[in-house]
Amino acid sequence: MTERVVLAYSGGLDTSVAIGWIAQETGAEVVAVAVDVGQGGEDLETIRQRALACGAVEAVVADARDEFAEQYCLPALQTNALYMERYPVVSALSRPLIVKHLVQAAKMHGADTVAHGCTGKGNDQVRFEVGIGALAPDLKVIAPVRDYAWTREKAIAWAEDRNLPIDVNKKSPYSIDQNVWGRAVETGFLEDIWNAPIEDVYSYTQDPTEPRDPDELVITFDQGVPVAIDGETVTVLQAIQELNRRAGAQGVGRIDIVEDRLVGIKSREVYEAPGAIALITAHQELENVTLERDLARFKRQVEQRWTELVYDGLWFSPLKDALDTFVAETQRHVSGEIRLVLHGGRAVVTGRRSEQSLYDFNLATYDEGDSFDQSLAKGFVQLWGLPSKIAAKRDLRGAK
Amino acid sequence: MTERVVLAYSGGLDTSVAIGWIAQETGAEVVAVAVDVGQGGEDLETIRQRALACGAVEAVVADARDEFAEQYCLPALQTNALYMERYPVVSALSRPLIVKHLVQAAKMHGADTVAHGCTGKGNDQVRFEVGIGALAPDLKVIAPVRDYAWTREKAIAWAEDRNLPIDVNKKSPYSIDQNVWGRAVETGFLEDIWNAPIEDVYSYTQDPTEPRDPDELVITFDQGVPVAIDGETVTVLQAIQELNRRAGAQGVGRIDIVEDRLVGIKSREVYEAPGAIALITAHQELENVTLERDLARFKRQVEQRWTELVYDGLWFSPLKDALDTFVAETQRHVSGEIRLVLHGGRAVVTGRRSEQSLYDFNLATYDEGDSFDQSLAKGFVQLWGLPSKIAAKRDLRGAK
Amino acid sequence: MTERVVLAYSGGLDTSVAIGWIAQETGAEVVAVAVDVGQGGEDLETIRQRALACGAVEAVVADARDEFAEQYCLPALQTNALYMERYPVVSALSRPLIVKHLVQAAKMHGADTVAHGCTGKGNDQVRFEVGIGALAPDLKVIAPVRDYAWTREKAIAWAEDRNLPIDVNKKSPYSIDQNVWGRAVETGFLEDIWNAPIEDVYSYTQDPTEPRDPDELVITFDQGVPVAIDGETVTVLQAIQELNRRAGAQGVGRIDIVEDRLVGIKSREVYEAPGAIALITAHQELENVTLERDLARFKRQVEQRWTELVYDGLWFSPLKDALDTFVAETQRHVSGEIRLVLHGGRAVVTGRRSEQSLYDFNLATYDEGDSFDQSLAKGFVQLWGLPSKIAAKRDLRGAK
Amino acid sequence: MTERVVLAYSGGLDTSVAIGWIAQETGAEVVAVAVDVGQGGEDLETIRQRALACGAVEAVVADARDEFAEQYCLPALQTNALYMERYPVVSALSRPLIVKHLVQAAKMHGADTVAHGCTGKGNDQVRFEVGIGALAPDLKVIAPVRDYAWTREKAIAWAEDRNLPIDVNKKSPYSIDQNVWGRAVETGFLEDIWNAPIEDVYSYTQDPTEPRDPDELVITFDQGVPVAIDGETVTVLQAIQELNRRAGAQGVGRIDIVEDRLVGIKSREVYEAPGAIALITAHQELENVTLERDLARFKRQVEQRWTELVYDGLWFSPLKDALDTFVAETQRHVSGEIRLVLHGGRAVVTGRRSEQSLYDFNLATYDEGDSFDQSLAKGFVQLWGLPSKIAAKRDLRGAK
Repeated sequence: MTERVVLAYSGGLDTSVAIGWIAQETGAEVVAVAVDVGQGGEDLETIRQRALACGAVEAVVADARDEFAEQYCLPALQTNALYMERYPVVSALSRPLIVKHLVQAAKMHGADTVAHGCTGKGNDQVRFEVGIGALAPDLKVIAPVRDYAWTREKAIAWAEDRNLPIDVNKKSPYSIDQNVWGRAVETGFLEDIWNAPIEDVYSYTQDPTEPRDPDELVITFDQGVPVAIDGETVTVLQAIQELNRRAGAQGVGRIDIVEDRLVGIKSREVYEAPGAIALITAHQELENVTLERDLARFKRQVEQRWTELVYDGLWFSPLKDALDTFVAETQRHVSGEIRLVLHGGRAVVTGRRSEQSLYDFNLATYDEGDSFDQSLAKGFVQLWGLPSKIAAKRDLRGAK
Repeated sequence: MTERVVLAYSGGLDTSVAIGWIAQETGAEVVAVAVDVGQGGEDLETIRQRALACGAVEAVVADARDEFAEQYCLPALQTNALYMERYPVVSALSRPLIVKHLVQAAKMHGADTVAHGCTGKGNDQVRFEVGIGALAPDLKVIAPVRDYAWTREKAIAWAEDRNLPIDVNKKSPYSIDQNVWGRAVETGFLEDIWNAPIEDVYSYTQDPTEPRDPDELVITFDQGVPVAIDGETVTVLQAIQELNRRAGAQGVGRIDIVEDRLVGIKSREVYEAPGAIALITAHQELENVTLERDLARFKRQVEQRWTELVYDGLWFSPLKDALDTFVAETQRHVSGEIRLVLHGGRAVVTGRRSEQSLYDFNLATYDEGDSFDQSLAKGFVQLWGLPSKIAAKRDLRGAK
Repeated sequence: MTERVVLAYSGGLDTSVAIGWIAQETGAEVVAVAVDVGQGGEDLETIRQRALACGAVEAVVADARDEFAEQYCLPALQTNALYMERYPVVSALSRPLIVKHLVQAAKMHGADTVAHGCTGKGNDQVRFEVGIGALAPDLKVIAPVRDYAWTREKAIAWAEDRNLPIDVNKKSPYSIDQNVWGRAVETGFLEDIWNAPIEDVYSYTQDPTEPRDPDELVITFDQGVPVAIDGETVTVLQAIQELNRRAGAQGVGRIDIVEDRLVGIKSREVYEAPGAIALITAHQELENVTLERDLARFKRQVEQRWTELVYDGLWFSPLKDALDTFVAETQRHVSGEIRLVLHGGRAVVTGRRSEQSLYDFNLATYDEGDSFDQSLAKGFVQLWGLPSKIAAKRDLRGAK
Repeated sequence: MTERVVLAYSGGLDTSVAIGWIAQETGAEVVAVAVDVGQGGEDLETIRQRALACGAVEAVVADARDEFAEQYCLPALQTNALYMERYPVVSALSRPLIVKHLVQAAKMHGADTVAHGCTGKGNDQVRFEVGIGALAPDLKVIAPVRDYAWTREKAIAWAEDRNLPIDVNKKSPYSIDQNVWGRAVETGFLEDIWNAPIEDVYSYTQDPTEPRDPDELVITFDQGVPVAIDGETVTVLQAIQELNRRAGAQGVGRIDIVEDRLVGIKSREVYEAPGAIALITAHQELENVTLERDLARFKRQVEQRWTELVYDGLWFSPLKDALDTFVAETQRHVSGEIRLVLHGGRAVVTGRRSEQSLYDFNLATYDEGDSFDQSLAKGFVQLWGLPSKIAAKRDLRGAK
């Protein structure tokens, strides 16, 4: 039986050309797999037809938007996942989902190899290959762009030679990856890190410096899940989409950062993630209200480690699984409402209310009704500072 | 000889009244100490005269603004200190400095007791008393407001009875603490955490939603110290002041948060820290460019712990000292320039350049000149993912 | 209705006397509660009768040994809980269990107050009171020894005056707390930290320096639970008891440490925990075989934090609950057998085997059959070291 | 000019053969470098002559034992470096020192390449290559065993063909690496992790189960440095050597562990490190006496990270440098004496005294002279437990 290769297929030039090239080089039949994670653009059926036209023996397309929102974006939201405290790991979230669909397709269509179009200097190759290794350790992986130095020029020549149904002239100056959680942009002039981004770089967000009226909304969370906006029930996907629209219209969620890639280099990245940033902002403040202090402090360490793991391609890993159980436990009481004002590039929390609140007006108030027993404080302060005080006595003695 | 008490003196009603009250209750002479940490308001000589008029045997005033900027704000900047990832520990920084001056005054004026005006449900009592215990373990501490339930009403009656030179009617609805690093506001209506702050709450910042032109500037850092703005040399104090002015004019640095106090309760706090937020934003991005990845990742844990310690009153403590040496070592290469745009409440980095940069255009670029050897990636990816892969084989085996 | 106080009752002098004293001081009826956590000594019925003879209106006794082993010792084992890397938190484990029984008794017998016999300078007062606050926030707590400076001399006089059925002369020179997980000893001469413990201090362990034959055994774990010893099925309680006997006979598990108490002082403690140390030793090595590397590395941080929380009296706390879920997830594959040799105070692992093993002979061997592809290493090493190398280039440039 | 290669030379078969082989393959002249890190065996001059006899154009030998003890073992001691809480990173310490000498030799002798004899599945290749990259980023590296699949059989044939002065029959069944800090052993039968080590595996330690008299000694530390044993001044090297002798004679420091290698696999390792284990045991307890609690707790995290970095080949790295400054700061007060009993494979602390002690008899004692104010405890306990209590009220409310 002819061997089969499952190819992560985007519908673009590189992966369209790869169908024929892989078939030729390996003698295998190519199964193209395209996954909709909310990246927009062409419809799935168009992409499917192109794959077949380019020589794929099978073309599988999947609308995975709800799956992506619920099983990938939601954990990231509950973890307040911001790599280097800025970047909501947009691309890092979609890769494991795509891997899952690739592996499923490989099983269904009897393939023993998976192919992806990543280069050798980025993070995505790691996310693809480590993910595949974790879900299907016996599958082989090939990466034509990286392992065979396949270039854009070669791809265009190949497509023209074979008259493939691809517009080879439709070249964006930008290298873009996008999904419902956000959008990543790289481009030549931004590789000079002194250069500022220009407005043309952005697509999910409007210019935040334009005057416009603020937009106020209330997000309802139930156990860490956004379940309503302004009182209307939403799915997770709808929550993200609605906030992409409304926060994007206010210029919220632009990020411009020099970032540490897993492969050991620094790169300059521009992102837009209006919905992600608005949701994380709201979720963090609801946690401030509902999480106990020690839990909140330790959760920050868990958040950092979770985010590093996911950024570093280890979505499917034992530590990630164990951190997930920790985070899930923390979300039990993260229920309530956050009022958010979106304006001028900022998502600002202006109110919070929750039946699970640990904020106790009677303990906090300086007005009447104060139930905090101040006489307890003296003993607390003394013993809290006792270790430092004993050390200070020692150190002062030594200083004499 | 008559015993002496050193009193942390602000010039306001409570501490003015405390002078006489402490003298009466303890039979001691009271030495008032007022420290200028950039809080603005009355000049020091006016405050000094009022203390004497209220019965202080000595009144010591100190302009500690440069000391505060260089020895307290600067370490906080280098640590990117944001409690709960938001609050630049404004009040927590000034307390240890004031403690230092109180202890010096106690030694100079032969006092064996220090008095402060903090309540028993806040953080500041801890910062004062733990700080005093660490610098002068033998000094006693009294806290009239906390330990003798001294109230505003009692204070007014006392002042009127004795005709003290204080305007007892000058009552702000806000409880405010401010210094050059920022400003903290509490007030009755904000104790309902669903209520939004009103514009009247703010003083360091203009309304960010008002239309105005952006302000662009370049901050130069040398080993983690801001040394120039737009090419003009500044002291640390001047850098903060200048950025308070320019970032404040753009509405940068407003914070509204439900926060975990050390004494075990949650409280709602509103802060403004335009200079602090602008400087930290710039400093973080310069670190992104100049710090090696593993160092940067671990530094985040150090930053969190440092900030918790300082918030929790442990400025003078062995762990804080040791973390300081870590942070100092990290700053050796944090030199370069950051271009910042201030507008609409946001401080946005738009460019960075540094002779200490670890960003290597030739390694990062996707254009010609690429010096990254992509053939190395395959082996890296395989071994990076090997532990997960081995675990996956085990787990899949178990799942059968 | 007369108010009722539930008293944590040990059967000893102090708490026997406390029955009458509390009744007299508060006018309340006293309900004595004694819990068997494997401390040995008198049988529960004898203790119950003494409580009634001393004036308790009710005396509740509970054999909680299995509950203690399964719900308190087992999580400590799975967390490899060693405070300061030495002490298996013996007393800290029994306190929350006792608290649970006290709170149950308070509800059943209509009490609104709980009393305990702890002093004000130890950790146990914290564990009792914080535990009670977490399980029954409305219960009041009284601590006669701490809050009323109740001394041994007063207790003896009280007992003799009232002819209570207690042998007031049976005074051990040691202050001891023991349960099935271990035994803690404090005594006057050990407060000089230069003094060595003497053999008389120990009870669970034989002198390890005595010549005797080694004892070899095999412990079987199933998902982190010890389920068999030498092939014979055991409950968790039986596993601990059997190892207390066999490891104790070989002098395993003696600990002598200067320890950081929560109340801010250092104290010198001597412990014996033969079963705990043997089980933890075996469990750690089985984890070495079955846990993936990143998981194992992060688990050490979780272990440290869990242990600090439990030592610090926060067994019933949101962070502890969340860490428990993390640990539980890690134990899914901790199944297999560990061969242990007990001798001369040491428990030494000499073999391990597990169907869940991640040790792969074919990857590890230097003999034939090696399936590790060494060609992958070069790329891995290069990219692993790339951040340091880039930093080194920068630093060497600066050094010129 | 002919190019030159610096070779890390041990004097054994593999690296002796490598001299000629590298020369032949690369056309370069080979400079052999041998470093004495206390591994014992042949004297350096013998090794030097053999290198020359095998064709080296230069042979450099260095007695680096003091340098190794003071600059590599001492930081490990001060960090209590135990990988996976067991293994004192023996080999990981010597590699960076050897790298330093290789780089120096390369500069001195005009070489542009360094060669080492490591395989592709171990940690040492990483330590060599990452170290070289950090000290001399421009040097090339070759690894014949890994990159050219050079085997023992080929080496023997090569040596016999050329009549090299090496005893090719002197084959130990063990793969051994040793230095003054310890000794690592791997061998075929231990690759079955159920097999116990046999006595023949060990060389630095006597059988701990043999009856013999205990050995008691006192180690004096000054700021974390061992400076005297039983009152006699020692260098760091002498301290380690003396304790290797005395602790080794009592069977102290044997370690048998399944360990996580950096390259992603688990391996089974047997170590002996009598001096290291005895010194670390003493040092840890002196820290228990002299380090403040919060500092000690955070230092454990630093210790774990430092040890992972060093194990993982990142001795020369920015994070390691910064952690070193933290550790150095912590050692300022780690001065005093520890009494240690060595016997039956155990190093047991039986006494400690220090002018820098934070143990305060008057605060700790339950006898007369107690200066601890127990009345402070009540307030401390209440506020310490307040966050849990507030959370408990919320959770109990929810449970109704």
